[in-house]
Amino acid sequence: MTMTDKPATPRPAPSAQAFVPFVSVDAMMRLVHRIGLPTALAQLTDRIEGDFRRWPEFDKTPRVAAHSEIGVIELMPTSDGTHYAFKYVNGHPSNTRAGLQTVTAFGVLARVATGYPLLFAEMTLLTALRTAATSALAARHLAPKGAKVMAMIGNGAQAEFQALALQAVVGIDTVRLYDTDAGATAKCVRNLAGSGLSVIPCTSAEEAVQGAQIITTCTADKRLATVLHDNMVGAGVHINAIGGDCPGKTELAPAILARASTFVEYPPQTRIEGEIQQMPAEHPVTELWQVITGQAAGRASDRQITLFDGVGFAIEDFSALMWLHEALGTETGAAQMLDLIADPDDPRDLYGMLMRSRPEG
Amino acid sequence: MTMTDKPATPRPAPSAQAFVPFVSVDAMMRLVHRIGLPTALAQLTDRIEGDFRRWPEFDKTPRVAAHSEIGVIELMPTSDGTHYAFKYVNGHPSNTRAGLQTVTAFGVLARVATGYPLLFAEMTLLTALRTAATSALAARHLAPKGAKVMAMIGNGAQAEFQALALQAVVGIDTVRLYDTDAGATAKCVRNLAGSGLSVIPCTSAEEAVQGAQIITTCTADKRLATVLHDNMVGAGVHINAIGGDCPGKTELAPAILARASTFVEYPPQTRIEGEIQQMPAEHPVTELWQVITGQAAGRASDRQITLFDGVGFAIEDFSALMWLHEALGTETGAAQMLDLIADPDDPRDLYGMLMRSRPEG
Repeated sequence: MTMTDKPATPRPAPSAQAFVPFVSVDAMMRLVHRIGLPTALAQLTDRIEGDFRRWPEFDKTPRVAAHSEIGVIELMPTSDGTHYAFKYVNGHPSNTRAGLQTVTAFGVLARVATGYPLLFAEMTLLTALRTAATSALAARHLAPKGAKVMAMIGNGAQAEFQALALQAVVGIDTVRLYDTDAGATAKCVRNLAGSGLSVIPCTSAEEAVQGAQIITTCTADKRLATVLHDNMVGAGVHINAIGGDCPGKTELAPAILARASTFVEYPPQTRIEGEIQQMPAEHPVTELWQVITGQAAGRASDRQITLFDGVGFAIEDFSALMWLHEALGTETGAAQMLDLIADPDDPRDLYGMLMRSRPEG
Repeated sequence: MTMTDKPATPRPAPSAQAFVPFVSVDAMMRLVHRIGLPTALAQLTDRIEGDFRRWPEFDKTPRVAAHSEIGVIELMPTSDGTHYAFKYVNGHPSNTRAGLQTVTAFGVLARVATGYPLLFAEMTLLTALRTAATSALAARHLAPKGAKVMAMIGNGAQAEFQALALQAVVGIDTVRLYDTDAGATAKCVRNLAGSGLSVIPCTSAEEAVQGAQIITTCTADKRLATVLHDNMVGAGVHINAIGGDCPGKTELAPAILARASTFVEYPPQTRIEGEIQQMPAEHPVTELWQVITGQAAGRASDRQITLFDGVGFAIEDFSALMWLHEALGTETGAAQMLDLIADPDDPRDLYGMLMRSRPEG
């Protein structure tokens, strides 16, 4: 065996099937700019809605979580029998203090028939988009008609995407912001200038919910926090509770859950991770997909409190990766090709491929 | 929003933590050549042994499988509390007919403390190496002392790696080859020329096992096949049964299992996927890691038949990725840096990062 450092590789140039398109953070940002963020959010909402309509076709499993004292790493797979997708996502609230993202993610779309990956993509940004799109989808089906004002409690990395998705899909025109960190609110005010939304910074959650028909909670503390107290939620309101998304992390007072009609993505996962982890195992919930298909009732009265207890489900990531895959089809040059798949001339001859790549000398 | 195609990105150059090293197929091959394949196989065997010695430290879960009529896609995560690893791997026996690999794989190593990936790597080749190293590890602890002759039934993509690992780690000097496809055997004979092994092609499994102290079965049919019949297995033999690795896929006659002492990686997974899926749920097995630590007996007599019912477990992939990560530390230039992690200046300002990347014009 030679020990030269020269990367001479007589391996014939890998064939097309050796390569998997990679969408970097930079490529994802360029793609979103080319499509336009509000359009992208609306497209994602429609695509998630389409996949929720065919919910029974998907293999579903609660995400596979590796918990540690300070965070969680999760794998979220699903398949519709033709395509398979999974996402890797972490949640580390203390990362912010080290200048790192609380949530980062990447994912893969693959063909079920061969197991070969079709796409490898950053999903930190894409998760932010699909999470906002899922909130918009829930609000489209559950919020009071003509809702114009949303309170946004928690003004971190998700906040602007939530506001813009609700604007694009539901037509809100005002967002009332509150965060325990005034700097986060100020950042959000700056970022939403020019969006067409009236943006109102508030100094308490109580102030933020004044006059709001939709309340979105999206805070990042990993504990049983009470971001929203019972007396802050009036009749007829729709709540998107997004931030409580792992065991031991909730945002709502249990009394709100007792009064509200609760809608969820996938009950076996939400009962572990969502706001309803505070409630008995038999606490009644309705699956959002059944509201969308008309199999279950959504909002039944003007005074009903509807709660979307969103934790994020694998099918939303599947939808997002399928959206991305389609977008790449028309947006040329967005992906970089990675030599990810060993592709010997004879599939049984992996060893021969390795040996033929031996450097000369 | 501008619609120019110009990829002008005022986003400041991403910081170091945005980038994740990627080891392509080509880079993996160069690395193996620089280290030397026998040395790499021996290093991997020692590293897997080291991780098996501290087995209780790992989070363990059966792999998460998505089965279809013609194959399976699996995610295999594990963690030792400091590092987290997962592998994506498919198994599609019919891929060979389409000129594709039966098994392809890639994986990620990450830091538990932050959830940030440390490494993204091809694992088709790396899986071949670690699978062979795991067989060598089992044989080191279970095969009769001084074993020199191995029968290799199934001469596909794994065969040469198995032979070379057993040569490097256990010291076999002869390999007797058989495959239902004579072309696969011929390929294997060609590839092993110059390895220092005596290579003997055989025209039946019965012929191949003549005089062998170790029998390795590694065929790819996805069904309950009988590659090895009871009357082919004599007293004192060690069997590495590698090919039966998913539900409905086995290689050994049940009578062999009844006579042999069976050693496994992780019982909850092996009972679903391994040869012992043919046996009652209470069929006795010994965990290989306990043999290695001395907590359980391995081979107890010269006439005992020992069977390593190997299905491949996540800890072996963890070991392989840790080996790769360390090797990259000294083998500069092997990895390509991927812009995988969104890394805004202010972690709460993902939206601002997106907006600052908006093309001018």
